[in-house]
Amino acid sequence: MIHPTALVSPRARLGRNVSVGPYTIIHDDVEIGANGQVGSHCELGHPAGAGGAGPLVIGADSTIRSHSVFYQGSTFGEGLVTGHRVTVREGTQAGKGLQIGTLGDIQGSCVIGEYVRFHSNVHIGKHSRVGDYVWIFPYVVLTNDPHPPSEVQMGVTVGDFAAIATMSIVLPGVEIGRGALVGAHSSVNRCVDADTVVVGTPARFVCRTDEIKLKDGSGSPAYPWRRHFTRGYPAEAVQQWLAEFGTSDSSVLAAAVV
Amino acid sequence: MIHPTALVSPRARLGRNVSVGPYTIIHDDVEIGANGQVGSHCELGHPAGAGGAGPLVIGADSTIRSHSVFYQGSTFGEGLVTGHRVTVREGTQAGKGLQIGTLGDIQGSCVIGEYVRFHSNVHIGKHSRVGDYVWIFPYVVLTNDPHPPSEVQMGVTVGDFAAIATMSIVLPGVEIGRGALVGAHSSVNRCVDADTVVVGTPARFVCRTDEIKLKDGSGSPAYPWRRHFTRGYPAEAVQQWLAEFGTSDSSVLAAAVV
Amino acid sequence: MIHPTALVSPRARLGRNVSVGPYTIIHDDVEIGANGQVGSHCELGHPAGAGGAGPLVIGADSTIRSHSVFYQGSTFGEGLVTGHRVTVREGTQAGKGLQIGTLGDIQGSCVIGEYVRFHSNVHIGKHSRVGDYVWIFPYVVLTNDPHPPSEVQMGVTVGDFAAIATMSIVLPGVEIGRGALVGAHSSVNRCVDADTVVVGTPARFVCRTDEIKLKDGSGSPAYPWRRHFTRGYPAEAVQQWLAEFGTSDSSVLAAAVV
Repeated sequence: MIHPTALVSPRARLGRNVSVGPYTIIHDDVEIGANGQVGSHCELGHPAGAGGAGPLVIGADSTIRSHSVFYQGSTFGEGLVTGHRVTVREGTQAGKGLQIGTLGDIQGSCVIGEYVRFHSNVHIGKHSRVGDYVWIFPYVVLTNDPHPPSEVQMGVTVGDFAAIATMSIVLPGVEIGRGALVGAHSSVNRCVDADTVVVGTPARFVCRTDEIKLKDGSGSPAYPWRRHFTRGYPAEAVQQWLAEFGTSDSSVLAAAVV
Repeated sequence: MIHPTALVSPRARLGRNVSVGPYTIIHDDVEIGANGQVGSHCELGHPAGAGGAGPLVIGADSTIRSHSVFYQGSTFGEGLVTGHRVTVREGTQAGKGLQIGTLGDIQGSCVIGEYVRFHSNVHIGKHSRVGDYVWIFPYVVLTNDPHPPSEVQMGVTVGDFAAIATMSIVLPGVEIGRGALVGAHSSVNRCVDADTVVVGTPARFVCRTDEIKLKDGSGSPAYPWRRHFTRGYPAEAVQQWLAEFGTSDSSVLAAAVV
Repeated sequence: MIHPTALVSPRARLGRNVSVGPYTIIHDDVEIGANGQVGSHCELGHPAGAGGAGPLVIGADSTIRSHSVFYQGSTFGEGLVTGHRVTVREGTQAGKGLQIGTLGDIQGSCVIGEYVRFHSNVHIGKHSRVGDYVWIFPYVVLTNDPHPPSEVQMGVTVGDFAAIATMSIVLPGVEIGRGALVGAHSSVNRCVDADTVVVGTPARFVCRTDEIKLKDGSGSPAYPWRRHFTRGYPAEAVQQWLAEFGTSDSSVLAAAVV
């Protein structure tokens, strides 16, 4: 249902069963896939600067929560879920299953993989490249300017399955390896090897990720996290993870979305 | 007065003299005590996820400023005051006189005492337990996951009268003692004794709080802060503080709310 | 054009050609100069606390983006540009050409020079004094209370052309010298000399700013940044900068606004 107070351009292309909340504005060049739910007080398809940015495309089965602003000129795969007051500038391409927490700020011109999860209040600088199944926690900033202010922009690269903990920053041009963990309140100024843990300002090597034990009494390794954390991921991926680690714990599979 | 553009469910229970600003939405299961003031562009009683979360209850004499979002399933004592764009998820219980600054993000399932003050842009992770008369300053995050991402959640505990300064994080399961001070830009990875100061990444003991002097020319101790800072607290509490410290400074009492 | 859903007080003073977006509220004591553009879901002239704060004055040719809240009692020169969800409290005086990024929080009673640029999500504490052509990057906080909480407020001072990089804080009463650079993720607890670089927690001297080289292949100095970064500044200022550094690179001038 389109709330009667919503201002939806007749040129916007809304799929079947899309709902739009009160006081939300949807501009001309917006496409929202089937079953999309848009909350109240949002603005979708906000005009970008000079130079036609192209449409804003939101995949099917997406949920955009209240007070969010998306510019035209970005594309999101199916199953996008946002918190409240999210801002997304133009020029970003994101895969399926992206989650952006409340207050997230995606600066645009980013490439984001599948099933990425940004917790609340992350800032993803322009030209960031984020792999699949990445986790980024609150108050993390991916930067891009090595000597601010300048016209040089060196985006950050984050490998698949990597996790960046709360209130850390990644400096321009740095690559975070696949499955790596950046500890909380760190400043990462050089590349991080796959499956390693770094922490501090500047962040330095601490141990391999598989040396960290789960604090659930099991004594199992906490990483790779896909050994034990599967909530909301596609069953197909989770089955592959279980096979990879020889796990037969059916509760782990049950936690996944089927 | 209920602004004519506000969308207020007939099932919401508004006390006498409640005002609701333009373009604000109040859902079914919301109770707002007498004299409550709700600003513009808010959404109160946002449906929580699966499983009935119960009502949102806002005590009497509360002020909720514009663009704020409260989910159903939390309870606030009288005299709640928020800044703008506050987000509060379900399952939180808070005492009287809570202040939440602009952009505050309370993740839910928290227990918050009386007369707590969150300055702008704090992030209170799920399962945090915050005592009475606590102060938390901008860009502080209380975390809960010891090896993110995981299903293990170890909330932070903050003792009465403690203060956590700007841009600090408290790691999962840590307890901050009564009256302790966490210096700015710190990462607290172990418990902090009562009435001590810690600072750094990781945060380490610096001194007892009463060794810090007030920079007002008096040379008096800056802590416990209730020796000199009483603005807006109930007169009853302030009189007790004055007695505790043998202060007879009537201007200190006059600053309190009577 | 004033959108029909905008609630504009008949006592607000809007210059010629001002546009106001949907669901925006403009209170009584607001003055907006010619050609101003105000986005959707804003609230301008929000009443300040006790004691008449005076009008909110926005200079000509300004753009205020959606979901922003400005209190009465501040004055902005011409060409103000904001991102989304900006909050500005009462009592601030700002010069021409100020930019405030998305989620910026200006706490009030600040003095801000000309052509200052705040990137996303900065927090400018009360009583801050910011010079001309300053840059402040995401998640920077300028603090003011040396022993929080207290009634002592010692604002920060930032000199002309200084830059403070991402997720740094400046402690109360500190002065950042003209042209200085505070590296990312730093905590600045003492004054910073002009044209020097500091970094760390606590921030310490690293080198002179002119020892940092531009990472554009040229090997030129990256600072003073006005040698090479001129986008959007007034042509008059840029010509002066070119003369100062004996640069004859016409592309640098062309990047400036003429």
